[in-house]
Amino acid sequence: MKGFAMLSIGQTGWIEKDIPACGPMDAIVKPIALAPCTSDIHTVWAGAIGDRHNMILGHEAVGEVVEVGKEVRDFKPGDRVLVSAITPDWNSIAAQEGYPMHSGGMLSGWKFSNFKDGVFAEYFHVNDADGNLALLPEGMDLAAAAMISDMIPTGFHGVELADVQFGDNVAVIGIGPVGLMSVAAAAIRGAANIYAVGSRKNCSDLALEFGATDVINYREGDIVEQIMEKTKGQGVDKIVIAGGDVDTFDQAIRMLRPGGVIGNVNYLGEGDFVKIPRGDWGCGMGHKTIRGGLMPGGRLRSEKLARLVMTGRIHPEKLITHTFQGLEGVEPALMLMKDKPRDLIKPLVLL
Amino acid sequence: MKGFAMLSIGQTGWIEKDIPACGPMDAIVKPIALAPCTSDIHTVWAGAIGDRHNMILGHEAVGEVVEVGKEVRDFKPGDRVLVSAITPDWNSIAAQEGYPMHSGGMLSGWKFSNFKDGVFAEYFHVNDADGNLALLPEGMDLAAAAMISDMIPTGFHGVELADVQFGDNVAVIGIGPVGLMSVAAAAIRGAANIYAVGSRKNCSDLALEFGATDVINYREGDIVEQIMEKTKGQGVDKIVIAGGDVDTFDQAIRMLRPGGVIGNVNYLGEGDFVKIPRGDWGCGMGHKTIRGGLMPGGRLRSEKLARLVMTGRIHPEKLITHTFQGLEGVEPALMLMKDKPRDLIKPLVLL
Amino acid sequence: MKGFAMLSIGQTGWIEKDIPACGPMDAIVKPIALAPCTSDIHTVWAGAIGDRHNMILGHEAVGEVVEVGKEVRDFKPGDRVLVSAITPDWNSIAAQEGYPMHSGGMLSGWKFSNFKDGVFAEYFHVNDADGNLALLPEGMDLAAAAMISDMIPTGFHGVELADVQFGDNVAVIGIGPVGLMSVAAAAIRGAANIYAVGSRKNCSDLALEFGATDVINYREGDIVEQIMEKTKGQGVDKIVIAGGDVDTFDQAIRMLRPGGVIGNVNYLGEGDFVKIPRGDWGCGMGHKTIRGGLMPGGRLRSEKLARLVMTGRIHPEKLITHTFQGLEGVEPALMLMKDKPRDLIKPLVLL
Amino acid sequence: MKGFAMLSIGQTGWIEKDIPACGPMDAIVKPIALAPCTSDIHTVWAGAIGDRHNMILGHEAVGEVVEVGKEVRDFKPGDRVLVSAITPDWNSIAAQEGYPMHSGGMLSGWKFSNFKDGVFAEYFHVNDADGNLALLPEGMDLAAAAMISDMIPTGFHGVELADVQFGDNVAVIGIGPVGLMSVAAAAIRGAANIYAVGSRKNCSDLALEFGATDVINYREGDIVEQIMEKTKGQGVDKIVIAGGDVDTFDQAIRMLRPGGVIGNVNYLGEGDFVKIPRGDWGCGMGHKTIRGGLMPGGRLRSEKLARLVMTGRIHPEKLITHTFQGLEGVEPALMLMKDKPRDLIKPLVLL
Repeated sequence: MKGFAMLSIGQTGWIEKDIPACGPMDAIVKPIALAPCTSDIHTVWAGAIGDRHNMILGHEAVGEVVEVGKEVRDFKPGDRVLVSAITPDWNSIAAQEGYPMHSGGMLSGWKFSNFKDGVFAEYFHVNDADGNLALLPEGMDLAAAAMISDMIPTGFHGVELADVQFGDNVAVIGIGPVGLMSVAAAAIRGAANIYAVGSRKNCSDLALEFGATDVINYREGDIVEQIMEKTKGQGVDKIVIAGGDVDTFDQAIRMLRPGGVIGNVNYLGEGDFVKIPRGDWGCGMGHKTIRGGLMPGGRLRSEKLARLVMTGRIHPEKLITHTFQGLEGVEPALMLMKDKPRDLIKPLVLL
Repeated sequence: MKGFAMLSIGQTGWIEKDIPACGPMDAIVKPIALAPCTSDIHTVWAGAIGDRHNMILGHEAVGEVVEVGKEVRDFKPGDRVLVSAITPDWNSIAAQEGYPMHSGGMLSGWKFSNFKDGVFAEYFHVNDADGNLALLPEGMDLAAAAMISDMIPTGFHGVELADVQFGDNVAVIGIGPVGLMSVAAAAIRGAANIYAVGSRKNCSDLALEFGATDVINYREGDIVEQIMEKTKGQGVDKIVIAGGDVDTFDQAIRMLRPGGVIGNVNYLGEGDFVKIPRGDWGCGMGHKTIRGGLMPGGRLRSEKLARLVMTGRIHPEKLITHTFQGLEGVEPALMLMKDKPRDLIKPLVLL
Repeated sequence: MKGFAMLSIGQTGWIEKDIPACGPMDAIVKPIALAPCTSDIHTVWAGAIGDRHNMILGHEAVGEVVEVGKEVRDFKPGDRVLVSAITPDWNSIAAQEGYPMHSGGMLSGWKFSNFKDGVFAEYFHVNDADGNLALLPEGMDLAAAAMISDMIPTGFHGVELADVQFGDNVAVIGIGPVGLMSVAAAAIRGAANIYAVGSRKNCSDLALEFGATDVINYREGDIVEQIMEKTKGQGVDKIVIAGGDVDTFDQAIRMLRPGGVIGNVNYLGEGDFVKIPRGDWGCGMGHKTIRGGLMPGGRLRSEKLARLVMTGRIHPEKLITHTFQGLEGVEPALMLMKDKPRDLIKPLVLL
Repeated sequence: MKGFAMLSIGQTGWIEKDIPACGPMDAIVKPIALAPCTSDIHTVWAGAIGDRHNMILGHEAVGEVVEVGKEVRDFKPGDRVLVSAITPDWNSIAAQEGYPMHSGGMLSGWKFSNFKDGVFAEYFHVNDADGNLALLPEGMDLAAAAMISDMIPTGFHGVELADVQFGDNVAVIGIGPVGLMSVAAAAIRGAANIYAVGSRKNCSDLALEFGATDVINYREGDIVEQIMEKTKGQGVDKIVIAGGDVDTFDQAIRMLRPGGVIGNVNYLGEGDFVKIPRGDWGCGMGHKTIRGGLMPGGRLRSEKLARLVMTGRIHPEKLITHTFQGLEGVEPALMLMKDKPRDLIKPLVLL
């Protein structure tokens, strides 16, 4: 079969591989919608997960089941399915502890285009089909469906980590596709004022449409000062970090109230230390909690997010700014993610 | 001063009393908007809290401060304020435990028209002004503001007790004004399908407008059967009970999934026992949690709910179906609550 | 192979069956220690789970692995293992929600001697070996090890459900082997006064040894009155129910403070309704939370409880009052459970 | 009256002041037991809270009430009382949010020897007597009682922040008096292995007596390596930081499992940034939560901790290595804290 792969750090290309084998709990799926992710860019061009050779890229997909293992109960060939980007081993100790994404080691619930071939191929392998697939609801927009793999659950997990409560004032730092879903999540989690920190016009417009009350443009001044002014010196109750780098936490702590929480879902690719400013962190005693985590994957999460799409609570299809046709489309879609033109939010490939 | 009072069980009337005295932590407030509540009806005509003589009724108010005690830091005469129906003693053991509404004994954080005169008077007394008042935000609709006393926090507390999470399917049983606010709360807390159980047309219409996906009419069949059918036999994830009686819990347990939660905010006025069906409760082992509680009162809650109104997340003013003018209006407003014509949701009195 | 079975309601006996087959995720285990449980008695003589024919009994075991499926990673023949009484399907929706014990339906994580043959046989089958077995720590007492199947996790789950916090006053109602483990759990969860409700001398003595501060004997007066007196009218903060019946909840609610929690781990075998007294439950608004649930099973739980045994935090081997030798011993051990002589706490069978 | 004061940074001495005035909610108390704290040392010699002139030191006391304000309900002259080191404004927004210690601003619930005169005087002032005092239980050892002001609640709060659960392996970094109480707290919160990190013999011995399973001496090698070896490469589930500096968090993150939690109760007096190692923090996605906070003060906390002392769950009096008599004793006791001889854990002054 044909797949679009990382050949080595900095190199991509089309390769041929055998169709993957299907274990007793597993499924083989062919894609019907795909999306590239910033992580794919980090993987190839920043070498974020180390060197990989001829590894098929991609972890965001909607597909059709073509084969299942004999222990699989709930799926059969022909089923159209949502595929989670994170596909844990559900019987692991980590999953039993409530951290399936770390089954097999920290972050190791992320398998596609990390420990095995990804989804940018004619066929791909899904471990534990019953645990990691979900039926595509009748009538669901494929663009929305593709966003259930990663963009929605990651954005939503930031809001869960930040523990947003009724009436909280919330800052969302970074309003790429993940941050935009965090804005939408905060709005349907009970936030009052949502301060969306970003600069690109289409992202800012969509942030407002998704429920932000204010856009804070870092090009127009220090974001801490802007947010302290908006909150009359009180700071925000909760913060979702969906962009930036290790220095972003310094800003976040300074704009956060005592008792507040930071929920990070941004992959920090560089820097030795995340910097927590001692004094603004209350000399260790300010109850400003710092959390960060890979999104939970799996079937239940996909099903619950699908319900939110089908009941019209969220409109993730609005993230899609560019659409390509056919498996070949993954190459230009990925290059678009790499080049990040200012009118891009998220590309989609339909097969 | 003049006030509208419960003279004895079953009897109401206008009486004259002295203006209440102001302790060092307290405030004296004159009303600018008032609303009667079903509890007032229970208090007078069902004798729900026992016999009371010449006790001024009412616990839902927006007002203007006319006097404050000398220990009050944050309010002064002339301030327009939101007044919580529940006014705890914040330094009590119960409040330190996180249950301010039970300060001084179970339910004893409810003081207006229970342990002291209520708000249907020319002036009323608020204990611990700093802890229990909140500034009326500039430009807030008085109808919405009056709903912050009781209808919004009670409805929202049901959703907090039920612990609604992203993508949950939720039943709200009872869609009077409190239940309608529970519907609105569930929708901005991340619920997917919201099954609003009621029968009156204007309530049903408003439930759909506030975010319900389905109205379940108990006149059209057993509500358990209807909800089990809608959920394909799975039952709902969470339930808010905002109406009914001690038998409602039997229905609720039967339509609830294992691992689900019931949050009750309905005052149960009659019956010896709340009935939990043993088998459907998993013989005690089904992880179907049953919670019920009086809403938290106080300043923080009012401020946070006010933010939700000001950011347009909720529209509680839509509850108001009948408006009266002047303090005299509390009498016909209360009688309207007693008679419950089918076009009534909630009356308001403007002064 | 030989096994001791429920032949039909009210009838037991030895039968011959084929050694069970081992699926790809599973293990076949031969017992080295076994214990009968009150549930076995309810199953056979009360018909608690309905009619069953020639079903091998028993769900408490320590064993040695004799065969594993080819997908099993962490266990191999010869390994000595702790076996959880509850063996969930870890990739189920219920487990992903945090309720593995309800995988496949309410209470359906309980499979041994319920949906399949139990452990009172020469060999038994364990589904999902990696998820449901744990290595027997070197040097662990077999009596303690056998209590990790059910007595410890069930008793401890009651304390988790009741959410015991530092300094709480706690009542444990019922001090059979499960309740005794609840007493031990409350003591190492931070409870202050622990009121153990029971009457048998050896249980009372062990309750005091495990950390109870007081034994409340229901033969010496109403337990609600006794506990209200001990707590100077305040009631307890938390309650674990590990015995009694549907009426026990009436007593529990009456001795519980507003804001308190009941955690039930007692299987309620009879009665139509669990009775919650309306007034003492604060007319639905007293924040007296009612929870009840089957213990979580699986490997992580067994490993964590084993750590508590190995570090000497708990001494579950003290539950064992009678020991039998050889597989044949399960019959007299079970009959002892049925007859409940006053000197019995828990019997053990060593093979 | 006479008091022992910080005259300026680096200078202490006895001064004369007026007896403080008693507001309507307040109490005036004379000490019967006092203890100096490391914070007093930081305040005077490190200038940790900035310059202060003629401010009476001390925040750990047991006393006798000599006067109460007229709004005080539950205390009267002659009552012997536990005094919390943290005395919040209980009706503040921060307290209503669950963070009383930050009432009036981050850390501002700490008032003694910070914003007003402390307890090392013939008399001291307690704001909100009903909220911040607790009756000294009959028969309680004064040494234990004095530890309820700060050492016990701070040590225990570390364990609450770290969210220790049944069977967790826990590291406690720093075993001065606060860390020792964290060890005791972890042991009665359900920890299995407790790795106490320290070097002084008497502290190590007491750690083992309080429930530590291992002492990790940083003089004998890198503590991360030692703990990773003890846990077979898994790391610990939870960490309490009760000593060290901003670099300690680097070590802590490296020895913590994904899904683990750090609870810091160590005052970080120096350094610009707390350092979180990016890679070991899972690039922001490892679910290693970082929490830190000032202990909650107030009456309920004191009462609940007193219950733990009276039921013999903890033995804080064992912290006391040196005892002085009379108010004059606070000077040598404080100097002992400053000099930290190796046989010191905690001094006490009895009056």
